[in-house]
Amino acid sequence: MSAQVVKVGICGLGTVGGGTFNVLARNAAEIAARAGAAIEVVHVGARRDNPACDTGSTRVSRDIFAVIDDPEVQILVELIGGTTVAKEVVEKALAAGKHVVTANKALIAEFGNELFAQAEQCGVTIRYEAAVAGGIPIIKALREGLAGNRIEWLAGIINGTGNFILSEMRDKGREFDDVLAEAQALGYAEADPTFDVEGIDAAHKLVILASLAFGMPLQFSAVYTEGITELTPQDVEYAEELGYRIKHLGIAKQTGGGIELRVHPTLIPEKRLLANVNGVKNAVLVEGDAVGPTLYYGAGAGAEPTASAVVADIVDLARELSAGQQCRVPALGFASEKLRDVRIVPMTEVVTPWYLRMVAEDRPGVLSRIATIFSDQGISIEALIQKAPAEGEDRVPLIVLTNRAVQGSMDQAVAAIEALDSISGEVARIRVEPLDG
Amino acid sequence: MSAQVVKVGICGLGTVGGGTFNVLARNAAEIAARAGAAIEVVHVGARRDNPACDTGSTRVSRDIFAVIDDPEVQILVELIGGTTVAKEVVEKALAAGKHVVTANKALIAEFGNELFAQAEQCGVTIRYEAAVAGGIPIIKALREGLAGNRIEWLAGIINGTGNFILSEMRDKGREFDDVLAEAQALGYAEADPTFDVEGIDAAHKLVILASLAFGMPLQFSAVYTEGITELTPQDVEYAEELGYRIKHLGIAKQTGGGIELRVHPTLIPEKRLLANVNGVKNAVLVEGDAVGPTLYYGAGAGAEPTASAVVADIVDLARELSAGQQCRVPALGFASEKLRDVRIVPMTEVVTPWYLRMVAEDRPGVLSRIATIFSDQGISIEALIQKAPAEGEDRVPLIVLTNRAVQGSMDQAVAAIEALDSISGEVARIRVEPLDG
Repeated sequence: MSAQVVKVGICGLGTVGGGTFNVLARNAAEIAARAGAAIEVVHVGARRDNPACDTGSTRVSRDIFAVIDDPEVQILVELIGGTTVAKEVVEKALAAGKHVVTANKALIAEFGNELFAQAEQCGVTIRYEAAVAGGIPIIKALREGLAGNRIEWLAGIINGTGNFILSEMRDKGREFDDVLAEAQALGYAEADPTFDVEGIDAAHKLVILASLAFGMPLQFSAVYTEGITELTPQDVEYAEELGYRIKHLGIAKQTGGGIELRVHPTLIPEKRLLANVNGVKNAVLVEGDAVGPTLYYGAGAGAEPTASAVVADIVDLARELSAGQQCRVPALGFASEKLRDVRIVPMTEVVTPWYLRMVAEDRPGVLSRIATIFSDQGISIEALIQKAPAEGEDRVPLIVLTNRAVQGSMDQAVAAIEALDSISGEVARIRVEPLDG
Repeated sequence: MSAQVVKVGICGLGTVGGGTFNVLARNAAEIAARAGAAIEVVHVGARRDNPACDTGSTRVSRDIFAVIDDPEVQILVELIGGTTVAKEVVEKALAAGKHVVTANKALIAEFGNELFAQAEQCGVTIRYEAAVAGGIPIIKALREGLAGNRIEWLAGIINGTGNFILSEMRDKGREFDDVLAEAQALGYAEADPTFDVEGIDAAHKLVILASLAFGMPLQFSAVYTEGITELTPQDVEYAEELGYRIKHLGIAKQTGGGIELRVHPTLIPEKRLLANVNGVKNAVLVEGDAVGPTLYYGAGAGAEPTASAVVADIVDLARELSAGQQCRVPALGFASEKLRDVRIVPMTEVVTPWYLRMVAEDRPGVLSRIATIFSDQGISIEALIQKAPAEGEDRVPLIVLTNRAVQGSMDQAVAAIEALDSISGEVARIRVEPLDG
């Protein structure tokens, strides 16, 4: 059985919806040659028109649910965003026996488990390549391209706004608040930047990547999330002096004690490719037991990069549908009955090297006291920078790079250091990841 | 219809064959959970045992054709290499109705067109992810992940041996021959290094990538191939002074005049990620009209990285076979009847900036004569380095970086420069690629 046309409905005609509509129209011939069937957008549901799209003779409904009710629609593309109306749209589409393609990371991260189960019951497929790292085909790489591997860990720059801010702080020595304001003016950051700069957006993406990597149900609430709002240009500069860059990473790692799931600012060696991913770009580094490290880089957001991923999902589905077949690749890469709940490692047990910055009195004995505190906790010092005091100052910045230490020990060491008379204020600390396997 | 086991035969148990056997054994449970079926190696054909493999109860035949005759085998994995026996194995396997997975770039690049046609006639599938860039899932990215895009161009470091040599020349200022000898001692380069250092291996891979990107039949004989044997440590150093690195790239580009297909040493800006891919690693940069630039990085060779790609292909097939389905993704990403022969642009028409190095007499008027020659050809100079003469020398190295110029004009300019009395010997020249879209 072979169909010449696969019919698509799009709900939401904003940035990504408009981009998807336009890419499908512009590259229609090439996409049809690849998919083995023409992909026709037969129905668009949008509360308002998108001036960038010439919808021409395509049926457009203001009631987005009319797209689901359209019996012609075989694949419903959800590009509304959020987890309220979008969730209802996806649920109703699945119930109506339609395949779903979405770019909605929050929806998948928070409600993916139930939506995937519903899709399986309904005998249809949900695809969400665009939900992580925009146009980079990282979902497909984990779900299919690396299917022979036991994934050891992955680490990604998966929020373009945060990476833009950190890149600017480094390149120009600017303050966080100052760059954030510029990012907002450029449209890279939302008026309320919380999702981006506090790491929630990255956590949404990380939990999806981790489930694909390790074969476990989505556990959004288990991700440790730390933002970049406290970073100073000084940290960026000192990291540089030590041969590191600071990136806001999402990290998922398989360890003896379970799976680590964490989003936080991280010092990484400047020679790593990931350290050289700048501006709004995204990249994900994946370590597999057979393949070793592989890296995937590209645009993590934007109308057409995201549309590229949406259309790839549509083509995947169309290749099967046009032959009357079902898509056989499980939603999370593992057969649903093989997904296993795994212990998430509490942050107090996570072991990494550390970067610490403190302000100390510039007098004899201070360094030796600090060294003793570390030694008492079994933490060894890898590098130390003591800056010369500024004119008329008797306090100096002191930067310490430690070897691997469990957070619990570091908590105690930091508490002891902060209790010293010779130390002013709090000790700033950032985790270090060598990213060397 | 659902099968619990998908049965695989492996022909060839050398480096990659052994790696594939071991990865399938070690990760059997995880692979089965992903594939929806156990992958069982039921028959191995190998002229000799591989001490790294415990074949245990697996049937092993010294006659590799016995694997094809084995009625149990559903997927035949060809890991013999070369284009003689391997070709016969693949042809016979296809004729016997078996699906084929191969890592053989020469076989696909030179005989892919006929093998894909035969597979289609026989209703079976050939997969070859491991043929390009080892464990990096670049075939899948082009064939599926970027299916919504018109690919504009791609540029790849797709020969690890060559990249190791260039990395060492740069890091340590060493001569080509010296590093090649070390690479041979380390097992990175063959006793006869021609395939690697003359770019033939890269050309095999490039032609495969280009066909996937642009939807055209494989045209191995059309690739322009230039090796790295003439590069000197001086070129590497001067490139560095100008802000560039020299990489041996395979480049495929869609232009108004057709498709460019070329492998040659290339100066690329040092800030590009591709410039920072060092040692035996591979990376491919792909520019799509919707997604923009994306990059894929990882191990381009080695037993288990290559096995990772072979197993991914097996899993793809197993996911379909276990449900009684056919694999619907065309061999070259485009439906075979949609592949179109495209004009390959002759090198004389290819336009790039150029790096030139010459030895000139250190006296007034030389520079102005050279500048006039370029100007007469309509070529503008972007940068120029004139070195101080060595003690007692009256000749100096002169390095010129030009703007974009067609090879035809550059040929004439170089001939005119070489004819000057003030220039000694030949002008060395290397193309430059800004890689900026």
